[in-house]
Amino acid sequence: MTVAVAVIPFKPKNPKTRLSCVLDEQEREAFAESMLSDVVAAVKDADCQPVILSTELFDSELVQVTIQEKGLSDALNEYLACAISKVLIIMADIPLADEASIQQVLSTQKDMAIVPGRGGGTNVIYLKEPSKYHVDYYGGSFLKHMKIAQECGLSCEVIDSFLLHTDIDEKEDLVELLIHGTGKSRAFLLERGFAIITDDKGRVGVERRSP
Amino acid sequence: MTVAVAVIPFKPKNPKTRLSCVLDEQEREAFAESMLSDVVAAVKDADCQPVILSTELFDSELVQVTIQEKGLSDALNEYLACAISKVLIIMADIPLADEASIQQVLSTQKDMAIVPGRGGGTNVIYLKEPSKYHVDYYGGSFLKHMKIAQECGLSCEVIDSFLLHTDIDEKEDLVELLIHGTGKSRAFLLERGFAIITDDKGRVGVERRSP
Repeated sequence: MTVAVAVIPFKPKNPKTRLSCVLDEQEREAFAESMLSDVVAAVKDADCQPVILSTELFDSELVQVTIQEKGLSDALNEYLACAISKVLIIMADIPLADEASIQQVLSTQKDMAIVPGRGGGTNVIYLKEPSKYHVDYYGGSFLKHMKIAQECGLSCEVIDSFLLHTDIDEKEDLVELLIHGTGKSRAFLLERGFAIITDDKGRVGVERRSP
Repeated sequence: MTVAVAVIPFKPKNPKTRLSCVLDEQEREAFAESMLSDVVAAVKDADCQPVILSTELFDSELVQVTIQEKGLSDALNEYLACAISKVLIIMADIPLADEASIQQVLSTQKDMAIVPGRGGGTNVIYLKEPSKYHVDYYGGSFLKHMKIAQECGLSCEVIDSFLLHTDIDEKEDLVELLIHGTGKSRAFLLERGFAIITDDKGRVGVERRSP
């Protein structure tokens, strides 16, 4: 039985530009798709039905709805206004997501649940009654989403999960994926020669070795 | 009833040097103590008895044991070898720690539990039979600690908590404390004029305003 529809915003063209220092455009597109694939697998494991909200169609058998890149919040809000099932909005760049962490979100006793992203963002929103809520993803969206919950009269649980909190935006974030990942996006990095290194101060980083 | 002894390594002199760009030495010492204070409050809330493993005595009523700074792993291993109660080793720079997240660690069904820190470190280790384990905090300690658990024949749960995963080392980490913190270390930052800012790309950071 499907527990909720999992809506996953996705940008297939020129994604993850802050990783340009270690991955070229084609690689970033393949890497973004591998992270999406990990997120899709995790939501399916948690009995959710994935729907991709994409800025353009890409080669995949996933159910896709295309939107304007700049209109993410508007497109989501149109979707939420008409939604009749429970909705999980989950970002495509949190490949550490797994069945247990998503189930922790889905099992909230409150009207809704939020997982903050690193740096003030929002990585996951779960809505039992989606038509009562609206999103606003620009800027420090976590505090905005908490405020909107209050304004809408919805009780809200903040879920304490580093697997869902860890979004992969920059080179340093790849350390987390190499250490804690288990899926396709980690395999992608290993195949491209990425490895964990420790500097002379004992600090951990990543480097890309020639194939 | 005390559930476990909470051993908290602490460096009172010239701590948190990666925050030198926004806090002078005296401020970093006060800030480190405020973070320690938040961690102590959290472990007490979770019915643990705090013991500070400090590189030198400092002005506090907390129970302190002094050690050599470079001998953290050795000092901890001496302690573990003789420990008769359950032991929680918890870092002093994770001020988002709260009762619920620590209780999640203490409630493991496994022989031990680990919370990874950001960047491959180890923020919390919980040991039901401490004399059977030893630590090694240099470098990417999380993977080492997982390996040691296996070598010692101890089952180990990795706890998924961003509150315990978030160590405060750099300026960017202060964003997390300002957004999610509730204790003395967040109050310290607010009193010193720190505030969350959003740049023109919608990215969130901190700045320090003149008092």
